[in-house]
Amino acid sequence: MCLPGTVEAVREQKPELTRRTVLAGGGAAALAALLPGEAAAHRRRPKRRGRVVDLTHTFTAGFPVYTGAAPTRRTINNYTPDGFYAQEWTFGEHSGTHMDAPGHFVVGARRTPDLTPRELILPVAVIDISGRAASDPDAVVTVDDLRRYERRHGRIPRKALVAMNSGWDAKLGTPAFTGGTIGNYHFPGFGEDAIDFMISRNRGSAIAVDTLSLDPGNSATFPVHNKWLADDKYGLENVANLGDLPPHGAVATVGVIPWEEGSGGPARVLATY
Amino acid sequence: MCLPGTVEAVREQKPELTRRTVLAGGGAAALAALLPGEAAAHRRRPKRRGRVVDLTHTFTAGFPVYTGAAPTRRTINNYTPDGFYAQEWTFGEHSGTHMDAPGHFVVGARRTPDLTPRELILPVAVIDISGRAASDPDAVVTVDDLRRYERRHGRIPRKALVAMNSGWDAKLGTPAFTGGTIGNYHFPGFGEDAIDFMISRNRGSAIAVDTLSLDPGNSATFPVHNKWLADDKYGLENVANLGDLPPHGAVATVGVIPWEEGSGGPARVLATY
Repeated sequence: MCLPGTVEAVREQKPELTRRTVLAGGGAAALAALLPGEAAAHRRRPKRRGRVVDLTHTFTAGFPVYTGAAPTRRTINNYTPDGFYAQEWTFGEHSGTHMDAPGHFVVGARRTPDLTPRELILPVAVIDISGRAASDPDAVVTVDDLRRYERRHGRIPRKALVAMNSGWDAKLGTPAFTGGTIGNYHFPGFGEDAIDFMISRNRGSAIAVDTLSLDPGNSATFPVHNKWLADDKYGLENVANLGDLPPHGAVATVGVIPWEEGSGGPARVLATY
Repeated sequence: MCLPGTVEAVREQKPELTRRTVLAGGGAAALAALLPGEAAAHRRRPKRRGRVVDLTHTFTAGFPVYTGAAPTRRTINNYTPDGFYAQEWTFGEHSGTHMDAPGHFVVGARRTPDLTPRELILPVAVIDISGRAASDPDAVVTVDDLRRYERRHGRIPRKALVAMNSGWDAKLGTPAFTGGTIGNYHFPGFGEDAIDFMISRNRGSAIAVDTLSLDPGNSATFPVHNKWLADDKYGLENVANLGDLPPHGAVATVGVIPWEEGSGGPARVLATY
């Protein structure tokens, strides 16, 4: 479009650039002060690449769910005759890329709107088990994986998102994503020992998996859900693109909708590094 | 809770702090490289306060909608007998704090998943019309408001979220939020002249209002929707807490769920400064 004023705007380009950068860059710089230890970071700062990685799958009708009915959508308004287009959605809270709030498993625990905005912005530690998972769909994150990570990348912070990259995001849309039917699922998750380790040693305030459940698919008792959520921490399921993040140095913003009385629910998760 | 390992973790506190800060701060610092002009910002950088402001209303059953049915929720699983708790939601995409994607009004235009992650992280210019709106529910953002803003705070960037603070977020839950029934609404919005100004002079890539519609409530023809969305830009409606942001210097992350074929849809909007 070339509306009135375009020529004028082009003429003004140079001063615009100058002032624009002040406003834009000034705001961006403020983000660096959000997490603790910014000063220390300057001693050993990962490269700033200015990248944004979307850790979210498109929220689709029919997105596989652990139990219950998959999401549905229908058009409720259209350009003709309404002059605009809109859809209506129906889904359970544990659909798509979503949060498990503490209250999902724990009576009286915090629900989605109770999490503070500050808890939703976290550094990300990516634990890569994709090699092992490629040959074993029942692979889990172990204490050894966490120790190996810490030897290479430093201690996992107390306030951090510890994310399992099993490579499972690429299987969405194929039978291998669930690896079977309910009661007979096969996909990776966190191991109970790893959760005990993280809780007892204050590693992480949230965990994420690129599969349908924080517990591995073959779990019958859900110890990861039961222990992690009972410690007032949250989880993210069905995250995507963790392979595009560095092992450390990224920051995730967990854009969970503050669903009233929510047990968790769909979230847009964006990471920057 | 005091689980095994707590004492050990406390003993290890000093080295943990050192390494934690490297991981956490390093990631946070990376955010500063996201937007253009970081170098220039250092010449006139707003104070970094390390604050997070939630621009999102709790997504509630019964949240007022411009047209159609309000959101509903029901419990589909409960601690007893299921061992966990979850809800199901049904709602139209234009409920709660939400996005209007270009495709909401424009045939063939981009829908929610088509917006790039980078378009969702923007510096915020807050245009405060709350004084005028307090005595006139039909008040709109004018070209004069934008010019006054730019004289004080510098040019609005081409890639920015231009947000109207009318104070209307505080009226949610009262009849004054809509100011009437459909066809007879009264609440503030953007004026058509302001939209013409912004489009022709490349000010902003997104707009936000703390009311139910980008156009003021008394509009019958929706010129703001029709022009702004047709220029491949997006809008946010029902945002909250803009009064807690500085006029410039904040950065918003627009966590819209990537609803398949979405005309927009619920979003978690968090701002940092």
